[in-house]
Amino acid sequence: TSSPVPKEMTWSARAELSQNAIAKKLFHLMESKKSNLCVAADVSSMKELITLAKEVGPYICLLKTHIDALDDFSLDGVRELEELSQSAGFLLFEDRKFGDIGATVMNQYTSGVYHIAEWAHITNAHPVPGPGIISGLKKGADKSGKDRALLLVAEMSSEGSLAVGPYTKEAVKMAKENAGFVTGFIAQNKLVDDPQFIHMTPGVKLEKGGDGLGQQYNSPKDVIAERKMDIIIVGRGITQAQDRVEAASTYQRAGYDAYLSRLGKSKT
Amino acid sequence: TSSPVPKEMTWSARAELSQNAIAKKLFHLMESKKSNLCVAADVSSMKELITLAKEVGPYICLLKTHIDALDDFSLDGVRELEELSQSAGFLLFEDRKFGDIGATVMNQYTSGVYHIAEWAHITNAHPVPGPGIISGLKKGADKSGKDRALLLVAEMSSEGSLAVGPYTKEAVKMAKENAGFVTGFIAQNKLVDDPQFIHMTPGVKLEKGGDGLGQQYNSPKDVIAERKMDIIIVGRGITQAQDRVEAASTYQRAGYDAYLSRLGKSKT
Repeated sequence: TSSPVPKEMTWSARAELSQNAIAKKLFHLMESKKSNLCVAADVSSMKELITLAKEVGPYICLLKTHIDALDDFSLDGVRELEELSQSAGFLLFEDRKFGDIGATVMNQYTSGVYHIAEWAHITNAHPVPGPGIISGLKKGADKSGKDRALLLVAEMSSEGSLAVGPYTKEAVKMAKENAGFVTGFIAQNKLVDDPQFIHMTPGVKLEKGGDGLGQQYNSPKDVIAERKMDIIIVGRGITQAQDRVEAASTYQRAGYDAYLSRLGKSKT
Repeated sequence: TSSPVPKEMTWSARAELSQNAIAKKLFHLMESKKSNLCVAADVSSMKELITLAKEVGPYICLLKTHIDALDDFSLDGVRELEELSQSAGFLLFEDRKFGDIGATVMNQYTSGVYHIAEWAHITNAHPVPGPGIISGLKKGADKSGKDRALLLVAEMSSEGSLAVGPYTKEAVKMAKENAGFVTGFIAQNKLVDDPQFIHMTPGVKLEKGGDGLGQQYNSPKDVIAERKMDIIIVGRGITQAQDRVEAASTYQRAGYDAYLSRLGKSKT
């Protein structure tokens, strides 16, 4: 490119700055796999989830699940998912969007049928209940005895989202006060310059448009190169593609090229 | 009381105005059982949930569950809960606090292990994703083929809640635009005068205080008589009482007396 690009930190450099073991691991995976792609596994069965994870595993740094939308959940399936995450090198992100008071989310996170804290490296929460939700989830993470990371949903991609203005500002404040456990945001715009925080953007698709239920899409280039977010979350653009492996590869390259252009480097 | 009390509509009268079959049923149950008490069943097993439902069933109009915090969830347990709801006369309210885009919540509501739409007469959602969340849940309710009602979480009882000001106003707007399916609010203050909307308030306890994880408590009298809310949601004040039957009875009388005082009638 001809215009000068401002200095950006590499993912490896950011891994060094991070206070959280999971965030460190994620940055390293991104670097080694040349991927800032998270696939949103919006499928309805564990079987489909495993198949999808096998197909897209080589291209992603993160697999985003809705474990409570699977008709045939089983702990065996979760074990298989964990093995795939190890062998193909990606982390598991349960997109639970916790939204309750601390005492409740602690139980929802660690207990129930799903035992999310046991297997999901990353989960997320709405900041709407106030800081108690972070304390509750932190207690749950500690209870699990494992390294865990939390993202706050600071903005949403859907039409008419109320996660704007002062709401988003408060989310950022809550994250900063809990850095170490809160490692980033689900957002549409870059919210903080502190390089330890990871910005992930859902609603990413190569073709613009909506889904008739309020979802609105943006392109990988727009999200990574223009808005300077870190990770693109792609759902239906990959899961509903004729060839999901090819689609995952295409999005991986699109996301990584956009990152390189930000670093001022040439394309892959 | 000596001071004149403004005219209030009875629950029966409000049942007539409601556009939603579940809200009508709830108002009628409240009238016949003289109860505006909802118990928050914050327990960790299905067995405890059933036991609690049997104990408090005669005193409540609504049982609020966190089905995803039970370690031994079973559909048989849900069937037993449904039978108790029929025999003791209370409705089931799954406090799921949905918080995702329309396409996702539709699946979370109808599918997964819990099949919430199948058995929960009422559920709730955060308005944060915008109106698409209501459309998605409405689709799910239609898919279930059953009468269902939705509450919006317009305010929260926890410290530092972001559900305030314009956020709450937007929630009210979304509810009004979807009256018929949205039948009320989880809130701390009365938000609309339209008598078809039911205002429910969590964080109610006869003793003031907090829980160390951000929860803040208010008394039944304060909530019903002063703030003019409709239903008190009581959790630990009943579930952690030495005698839960006696506690349920005490809260039922406290809530109903506060309602009567609002109607300008004498106590029970």
